[in-house]
This record gives sequence, structure tokens and C-alpha cells, in this order.
Amino acid sequence: MKELTGIIMIAGSSPSTTNIRYLSNFPPPDPFLFMKTAEQNYLVVSSMEKGRAQKESKPGTIVLSVKDLSLRQASRRKQGAWALALLRKLKMTRVKVPADFPAAVFQILEKKGIKVTVLGKSPCPERSVKSKEEIACLRESQRAAVAGMKKAIRLIAAASIDSKMQLRIGKELLTSEIVRRAVHATLIEHDCIGMDTIIAGGDHAVDCHNKGHGPLYAGQAIVMDIFPRSEKHGYWGDITRTVCRGPASPELKKLYNTVKAAQQGALRMVKPGISGDEIHKGIQALFEKRGYKTGCTDGKNEGFTHGTGHGVGLNIHELPGIGTVKNRLEPGNVVTIEPGLYYFGLGGVRIEDTVVVTEKGWKYLAPCEKTFEL
Amino acid sequence: MKELTGIIMIAGSSPSTTNIRYLSNFPPPDPFLFMKTAEQNYLVVSSMEKGRAQKESKPGTIVLSVKDLSLRQASRRKQGAWALALLRKLKMTRVKVPADFPAAVFQILEKKGIKVTVLGKSPCPERSVKSKEEIACLRESQRAAVAGMKKAIRLIAAASIDSKMQLRIGKELLTSEIVRRAVHATLIEHDCIGMDTIIAGGDHAVDCHNKGHGPLYAGQAIVMDIFPRSEKHGYWGDITRTVCRGPASPELKKLYNTVKAAQQGALRMVKPGISGDEIHKGIQALFEKRGYKTGCTDGKNEGFTHGTGHGVGLNIHELPGIGTVKNRLEPGNVVTIEPGLYYFGLGGVRIEDTVVVTEKGWKYLAPCEKTFEL
Repeated sequence: MKELTGIIMIAGSSPSTTNIRYLSNFPPPDPFLFMKTAEQNYLVVSSMEKGRAQKESKPGTIVLSVKDLSLRQASRRKQGAWALALLRKLKMTRVKVPADFPAAVFQILEKKGIKVTVLGKSPCPERSVKSKEEIACLRESQRAAVAGMKKAIRLIAAASIDSKMQLRIGKELLTSEIVRRAVHATLIEHDCIGMDTIIAGGDHAVDCHNKGHGPLYAGQAIVMDIFPRSEKHGYWGDITRTVCRGPASPELKKLYNTVKAAQQGALRMVKPGISGDEIHKGIQALFEKRGYKTGCTDGKNEGFTHGTGHGVGLNIHELPGIGTVKNRLEPGNVVTIEPGLYYFGLGGVRIEDTVVVTEKGWKYLAPCEKTFEL
Repeated sequence: MKELTGIIMIAGSSPSTTNIRYLSNFPPPDPFLFMKTAEQNYLVVSSMEKGRAQKESKPGTIVLSVKDLSLRQASRRKQGAWALALLRKLKMTRVKVPADFPAAVFQILEKKGIKVTVLGKSPCPERSVKSKEEIACLRESQRAAVAGMKKAIRLIAAASIDSKMQLRIGKELLTSEIVRRAVHATLIEHDCIGMDTIIAGGDHAVDCHNKGHGPLYAGQAIVMDIFPRSEKHGYWGDITRTVCRGPASPELKKLYNTVKAAQQGALRMVKPGISGDEIHKGIQALFEKRGYKTGCTDGKNEGFTHGTGHGVGLNIHELPGIGTVKNRLEPGNVVTIEPGLYYFGLGGVRIEDTVVVTEKGWKYLAPCEKTFEL
């Protein structure tokens, strides 16, 4: 994926964009302004941040504090004033900004005669192709995810089943919360943070963004989706496994095997040149053929209710998507492949791996066994 | 703080704003659109999210999926199209948006003849006054922060000192990383997440956003700033203590005692009606009087290099700020009081508590001892 050319400006605060970290190497904790031109990168930060920004940002980045922009005290807190001062200092009259650029800054620049073009696409399309260094970071986070998954699987496998079919460790009920906590503690040993980890049994897993809560039961499918972010470098890992403590019903086993086959089929399709939507359509067709319908009944979505995958990098969801949109895969893409099927009453199954697209096909970032019945 | 009136629209994706969670009770993981009018709240989410949004959002919120807005397939991924469709459906021609509203959506609405006013202030000023329920949530997160702090203090107090003045637990060096991991593991027991926790010894602490790394030493000031976010409800806690294993030099002890006195003095000033900048100026004056200068030498900031405090809620930094800006405190504000002094060679000291402003003064959210030499 080629870099965008032209003068590109990004403004915001740290949680709202990781492009700044990608482009400058510097994760700013406070409001910031970043500008990229053909020759030079500029980073505007608070006076307090200047020293650290100079130390940590990519070589060749010109770091300016609000003081360097000769702003009056009243304007020092206004990103719009920063942006205007920077453009005027550099005698620039036009700039491209991403779709999520703050409206307040956009409006000020336009009012002051700057020609602002709002980009329809990411300001950093090159992010979708990872460098060797980035892949090493992603592998580290994926290994943490696998370690977390193994911990969760061991915990559920070790559980006993009481007369109400509830899982127990010793006398204590084994809940989604307890498994989640054990996963997060494992991630911390790898200096990764787990957030919104899904440990969802039965119908909890059918509502795709339900994290799961309360007791876990034998015979139910338990979807476990673990996506740690490294505290060291900010890259994510992503893995999902579905397990069942004790024997599963024939219907549930069939559901699991269908999703497993779909995931393997999708992985076989992964290679440079194929478009994400071809892979996604392939899985949709396979599910349909095997009688698993997708649709909305009584306001409830069932079947294959989400995309097949997404890129992973400094964001947990980034380009290229593997869904309904055309996105040709390239070597160096890092993507998840995660088909799933969800039906109320029966349960949900999702299996997800994160892989790197190679010249000839793909490789796991970090392998992890797939076992359903524990 | 009064609510803003008029039609207010918020758009974005989950990390970029917590106002949506505040106003609708629903933390959307995907792009969303929220609109608040005098009569009604509207929430637009993806089809997959609709069921959960209806279940979890505040009573009276009208939840619409992109399908309900009769958008063509091509427009379903575009927030601008969502926003325009919603406004047209409700026959509205003007709307207020926050400063960080996406420029792409702003531009589309303006082009289609909607009068868009960009707000200079927060779209949810009422957030700065916390309800009883919110204070209970904040107290829970603050208790987690205190538990994490006690763990860190125990670990450092238990360390032995080797011939190079390095701290050790058994034979292993005690590093910032090890203390941070122990803190994060403790936070997880409280279903809280620790991110960017600062465990910074010596000069690491002088660069205010340096998290700290490597071995910790006896005789140095170790600044520990712990700010957990609850996985359950999203509210944050925030606490800082500074400790020293073994005896501190007289200069360092004086630095500590000065910051401690400043923090106590600032706390004594906290009450309804006082403005944040009065408290901040009070601390600045006290430091100056005691000979602790603030300024920039050779591009390095030293002294009292940051604000005195900030509001805490669904964001770790929110209104009211306690710094250079006028912000009158009200009962129900939850704020940190965290003066600090930082000098290269000597080290840094910061002491921070999070307190709730009451009718008569203030209360700790959760108390925690202050001991310097361990």
C-alpha cells in the first residue's frame, strides 16, 4: 500500500488515533498536532512533553512546543490556533486531514483561508503492510494472547461439574469473571493489557459483544476472545477459541465442526492478490450450503453475523478488513480469520487466528491448538 | 453545572469519547452516532449492536440501526450519511456538535444545508458533577488504586539493598517493570485495568510522563502513579505516592516534605465556590516561597511542571481542571490534588489523592497513608 502524498495534518488526543504513533514513533498522552510533508514531519506538543517527544520520536521529526509557535497564553490550549500557527510558520495554504479530524480545527482553518481536504481513506494506508519489526511486535502480543488462552483452557478443563451442570473449581463456581481475571493476570506477565476479554457461555456468546458473566456450564459452548495490547510497543494480538466442558450435543458439535471447517477453508484462501470479500463470500456460501442461515428474527441477529476478519496492528481493528469490502491482500498484511455462527438456544462458536500474509500464502503469528470438548 | 440545551450530536468511535456512555449508558464498541434533543435521545449503531444497545441504553433512548435509516448499502458505513439521514428523518435543520466531531461528518452536513455549530465547551458539562451512583463507582476504582499502591509499597519496603544500592527481592533485581506488573495484577483482582502506570525512580520521575524502567535504587525518590479503570463501569481511580527505600538525603526529604505540605494546603482550600486556579496559584506561591523554582533550563522543564489536579470520571482527565483556568468547584465534583516538584539529579516527588467536593469541603474517595522512607 502506497503512502499518501501531500501535506497531511492529524490532530487529536492519544486515544483517538494511533497514526501519530505510527508516523512519529511517539505516543502522545496529551492533545497533539502532527503534520507530514514530503520533506519533513512536524509534531506539536505541550511544553511539558517536548523533551520526551524529541527523545522518542522518529529521527528527523521537528518537535515544537506551543511556546515555539509564539502563541498568546489564551491560544495555547486551542488546537486550532496550533494548526494555524504551524501552517503560517511554514507558509502553507493547503492541507489534507483524516475523516476524524476535529471539526473545531477544521472550521478555524477554513475560516482563515486554508484549503482543507478531508480524506476519504486512512491518512496512513501504508500501515496495512507491516515491517519485520512490526511483525515481531505483533508476534509478541499474539504469544501473550495464546498464553492467556492456554490458561483459560486449563482452568475450564480442570473444572468439575456439579448437579446443576455448573462448573466448579473446588467448591467455588467457575464464572466468566474468574476465567477473565485469570486471563488478564497471565497477560500481565507478558506486559500486555487485556480489555473487554470475552468469556461467554451459551446465549451470552450469541450477542457478539456480550463479554459474558456469571456461572459457566458443562455442555455449553464457551467463546473466548482474547485481544491483548502490549504496554511496551502498543501492538495487539487477537485469538478466539470455543470450548465445551464435558460432552457437547450432536447439534453443537456439528456447529463447531462447521465453523472449524470454514476457518480452515478461509485460511487456505489467504494469499497475496485475493480480496477480503472473496474470502468472506466463500465462508458465507459454505455456511448456507450446510444449512446455517444468517438473518434477523424478532430483532435478533443469528447466523454468521459479523465479518470474517480484520487487520491488526497498533489498532485492534484496522485495514485490511476481510468482509463485504474489496481489499486485496498483500505480503506483510496481518489479519485475523474468525468466522462464527450464533443461534439462541444452541449457542455460539467462533474460531480466530491472526496470520501474516506471506509471498506464497500465510503463516500463523503464534500457533494455538483447537480442541472443542474438554 | 447546567446541561447544554439544543440539539447536540456526537459521532465517533468508542475510544474517542465517553460522552456517549454518559448520556446513553451504552459503551459502543463500533462507530456510533448519538443525538440529544430536549425531548429525546437517539442512538444509531450497526445492526449487530442494535439488540444490545436497546437492552443496555438508558430508558427512553431511541435506538436505530443503519437499516432503520433506509440507507443504501454504499452509505451504511458512512457516519455522514447516518447523521444526515437521522436529521432528515426528524426534520431537523440545525445541530450542535463537540469540538472533536469528525470533520468528514461536519463537512457533509454543512454541504447539505444543515447549520452546524461547533461547541467551544464540552457537550456534557453536567458530567463534572457526579451523582451518588457515580461516586460509588469512582470510590470502587479508587479503592482498587489504593490496593495497588499498598502492594507496590509492600514490595519496595520488603526489598533488600545490594552493594550497588540496587533493590532486590531475594536474588532478583526489583525493577519498575516488576512493581508495575504486581500493581496491575492487584488491580485485576478488583476488575480494574492499569495502563501506563508510573513507577519511576530518580531522574525517570522528573520527566513527568516517563513510566520508569529498569532497576530501582535505595535512597532515590520513587514516584508511583496508579490510575485504574474499572472494567465493570468504566470509571477511573487515581493516586500517586512517592517513596524512598532506605534513608533519603536531607535535600530529598525537604523536597518531599514541601510537596506534602503543599498537598495538604491545597486540600484545605478545596470547597464549593473556590476556583481551581486559586488553588493552583496557592501551591505555586508556596513552592516559590520555599525556594523551589519552576522553569526551563537547557530545554528541560524543572520545578512544578504540571497542573494541580483534574476531574476524574469516565475519563481519567476531565472537568473541572485545577490549573491555570478558572473553574469554580461545586459539590459533587471529583478531583485530584497532586502537586509535584521535579529536579534532575535530585529526583521527583508527587503526592496525589482523589477527593469528592462536599457542601462544606471535601472527602477522600479512599484514604491511603503517606510515608516517604520505607
